[in-house]
Amino acid sequence: MLDTPDPSAAEAAAFETPFMKALVRLFRAQDQHGAWDRKTDAQVLQEYIVTKEQRREMPIIGDPDPDILWRIEMFYTAIGLAAEQKTGVIAGPMMKMSHEGFGRLVLLAGNLVALSRHLRDVHRFGFDNFTKMAAEGEKYLTKTVEMIEAHPEVAQA
Amino acid sequence: MLDTPDPSAAEAAAFETPFMKALVRLFRAQDQHGAWDRKTDAQVLQEYIVTKEQRREMPIIGDPDPDILWRIEMFYTAIGLAAEQKTGVIAGPMMKMSHEGFGRLVLLAGNLVALSRHLRDVHRFGFDNFTKMAAEGEKYLTKTVEMIEAHPEVAQA
Repeated sequence: MLDTPDPSAAEAAAFETPFMKALVRLFRAQDQHGAWDRKTDAQVLQEYIVTKEQRREMPIIGDPDPDILWRIEMFYTAIGLAAEQKTGVIAGPMMKMSHEGFGRLVLLAGNLVALSRHLRDVHRFGFDNFTKMAAEGEKYLTKTVEMIEAHPEVAQA
Repeated sequence: MLDTPDPSAAEAAAFETPFMKALVRLFRAQDQHGAWDRKTDAQVLQEYIVTKEQRREMPIIGDPDPDILWRIEMFYTAIGLAAEQKTGVIAGPMMKMSHEGFGRLVLLAGNLVALSRHLRDVHRFGFDNFTKMAAEGEKYLTKTVEMIEAHPEVAQA
């Protein structure tokens, strides 16, 4: 579904993936005043899209702002939520940032590190389009689910 | 050894525990200019001692300053180092602070959460004396080692 040639059909398919559905749900759940009621899912997640042109204008090295750190945390929180739907075990994020946009993010499920990612260039975090974003999220969701299923007794502790 | 009635003997015994030795080593390793060469171990770790009188003067709720967060991270880093000496597997800390001194600290060894602690009143972090501090560190060291030994294949991943 993700490699359909029609861009708008591809984007629609991207929003049907478990990861993207979880992320949209997570964002809309935090919209307590209904400001996003009339917005499409693509509008709600628009900040995740960083075009090549935008990226070119960004400094090579930079300190990430709190909004970006929050978007990264939500990205992985959604992976944890989608993993829960598949495994029954929830995985939550912990992030450790060091200097200049380097860091590490883990998803913890019980006593298991279900996913571990070294982050870099965090200030440039974003995706060319929603299709690529969905593919990336689904890739890490698959890893997380496989890890939980390989060590259920540790993940359920 | 830790419950000897003589306070100075008890303190000397405290500094002989694997946890305290690891913490002193960690501090001295960061003393690149030799400023602490003539200081005793007790002087090097003095900031970990918060007497009852000092604690009484602290606000009940407060935001922790970076020095305290650093001391907490070093405290658990030393537990990870001491665990490595016993198991051959190193465990490193990740900390997540939320508002007003609440947070969570984990020691990660490979794909294993070897220790998980919910923190609170972080701005008041400290110990009555080194004997109590050593006992606390050793308690969590034992937990960490037991966890690693219970799941060696996850910890070595």
